[in-house]
Amino acid sequence: MLSKITVPTLLLDKKKATDNIYFMLGKARKHGLIFRPHFKTHQSLIIGRWFRDAGVDKITVSSFKMAQYFASDGWKDITVAFPVNIREIELINELAKEINLNIVIESKEALEFLSNNLKYNVGVFIKIDAGYNRTGIECADIEYINALIRLIRSCRNMKFNGFLTYTGQSYRLKTPSQIPLSLKKTLNKLSLLKKAFINDYPDIIISIGDTPSCTLSDDFTGADEIRPGNFIFYDVMMISLSVCTWDKISVCLACPVVAKHTARKEIVFYGGSVHFSKENLIISGKEFYGLVTRITENGWSEPVKGVYAKALYQEHGILKCDNTECFNSINVGDLIGVLPVHSCLTADCMKSYLTLDGEVIGHL
Amino acid sequence: MLSKITVPTLLLDKKKATDNIYFMLGKARKHGLIFRPHFKTHQSLIIGRWFRDAGVDKITVSSFKMAQYFASDGWKDITVAFPVNIREIELINELAKEINLNIVIESKEALEFLSNNLKYNVGVFIKIDAGYNRTGIECADIEYINALIRLIRSCRNMKFNGFLTYTGQSYRLKTPSQIPLSLKKTLNKLSLLKKAFINDYPDIIISIGDTPSCTLSDDFTGADEIRPGNFIFYDVMMISLSVCTWDKISVCLACPVVAKHTARKEIVFYGGSVHFSKENLIISGKEFYGLVTRITENGWSEPVKGVYAKALYQEHGILKCDNTECFNSINVGDLIGVLPVHSCLTADCMKSYLTLDGEVIGHL
Repeated sequence: MLSKITVPTLLLDKKKATDNIYFMLGKARKHGLIFRPHFKTHQSLIIGRWFRDAGVDKITVSSFKMAQYFASDGWKDITVAFPVNIREIELINELAKEINLNIVIESKEALEFLSNNLKYNVGVFIKIDAGYNRTGIECADIEYINALIRLIRSCRNMKFNGFLTYTGQSYRLKTPSQIPLSLKKTLNKLSLLKKAFINDYPDIIISIGDTPSCTLSDDFTGADEIRPGNFIFYDVMMISLSVCTWDKISVCLACPVVAKHTARKEIVFYGGSVHFSKENLIISGKEFYGLVTRITENGWSEPVKGVYAKALYQEHGILKCDNTECFNSINVGDLIGVLPVHSCLTADCMKSYLTLDGEVIGHL
Repeated sequence: MLSKITVPTLLLDKKKATDNIYFMLGKARKHGLIFRPHFKTHQSLIIGRWFRDAGVDKITVSSFKMAQYFASDGWKDITVAFPVNIREIELINELAKEINLNIVIESKEALEFLSNNLKYNVGVFIKIDAGYNRTGIECADIEYINALIRLIRSCRNMKFNGFLTYTGQSYRLKTPSQIPLSLKKTLNKLSLLKKAFINDYPDIIISIGDTPSCTLSDDFTGADEIRPGNFIFYDVMMISLSVCTWDKISVCLACPVVAKHTARKEIVFYGGSVHFSKENLIISGKEFYGLVTRITENGWSEPVKGVYAKALYQEHGILKCDNTECFNSINVGDLIGVLPVHSCLTADCMKSYLTLDGEVIGHL
């Protein structure tokens, strides 16, 4: 298979990916949670079917276009976890006609527009900001939340589902033990919110989701649904947060080596920001774009010590090799593997996968 | 037209783009330089034709796939300005059979492989590192350069074209007046190199190329060819280097507004790293992802003061509005314009353009 790889190619280890699916599904089942994985990570019908084969029937996406893509493959229960973009009302109606579509609301303006323009039923989550400060309504803003719920109730095409939050603050925590504690704090806040409305709306649910919390936590008291996405692939960002080890990462970008610079122990590979995206980590003040592995016929090795991707240009990537033995063993024309910093963005750039069995898998 | 825009859409002002083409073409002609613009910026057959209409017949690309794409539209003289990836030998031969293909070499290993595997004629540039330190052979390494030239000469399918360098060090300079000085220094070095070989190879050329130098310099003594690319669009990076003013930027991402946060004067828009890429500028220690404009039926306004894109997530973007009047005037459902930090990467993410006349233009 390797001899057929001529350009940067995103390898996918199906065994690792399905193990990751079963790990998270098992966790959801153990805690009695609805499992609604976020499909923005893989954006692939084929990979979606691996989830379906495991028994998943509810999914999350981040755009209506993505909802349409997965609906075309038979997914019938989709939450678009992004503040609703009312300019897409035509597509929203098209989808709401066909599937159980859940949207996310955080403003009266959007609600009022939808009240006047929705033609079919949708489920509505109110987006809560439980500390990430990206978007959503603060838990404490009960008055505004109340007003939104009244508006939802007054619209015959809307059903109030509950509260949805993204617990992305986990990415900012320095030690892995802080992550479950942070989730617990968030869930306490959300539980209070739920209590305030449960009498009037006995079915409302609390939906949370981020891979670090869902991977590391073992107490989900107060949550009803989880929406992690990244865990299907994991990535170097997750290693840096001690959320996973390298052997859980199921994607690796195979890149041809095109030049070597002995004096500065750098290797130039074909693989740049149009392949990886430009997401990086800053480690000891230095930019860091990925860990380096050896590609084999069966997959890839553990990360090589003393080697990392130090820079990405549009199509060039630069490996820094403090490890001389490794530097000497890599030749122009070889393939090296790079574990990406942010697998969701790398998959979005690459738009396709090659499994270790040689199957090419599409992406939206 | 605006009412039809429902999702992030890359607007292209054809008038500004063609003005940029004629500006750079005029400059090349004035200085007697071969103009071989880099098409990795736009990667579009239609935009390529705008160059052709202006009289351009030689182009630069960054991959063999891109060469194939443009060759399919009748381009016959293409330089792939990337250290040759020998794993693509089949495509290289396919292209070399059909067009005047120029490749870039910087190692004996690649040359030896090609000597044994090339079936058709190619032009060969030796890649020189004239101070950027990304890749290429240092000017001073005459012995290695000599050895490469001998190898090129000994291969019947190779013609030695000259020396090619990317003068990207211009991006690191703090004041615009340093940019022409830096180019002059580079050209002095390259001229010495040329002198060392001109007796044996009277036709060799020096090829340079980066948008900051080509835009700001007015002395190209020693250069024979320029290969700038970004100038067709320019971007906020170029503004930050004082290479251009906002009115030269010919692309703007139109993004729907999805939420407002009054307390922190932030606006959430639909437009994230999958649309812009994650390239940013660090200004006074803060991440900066783009300047904000008002979208109109005729294009877009000058950048609004006191507003900028402060963060990008996968699909979300965050505007910080220190300008209260502007904050108050933007509503959920509106479109805002964002001038990208790096237009080449944004175009690569978006994969299509919408001209102000309503024409949808494709991208590789």
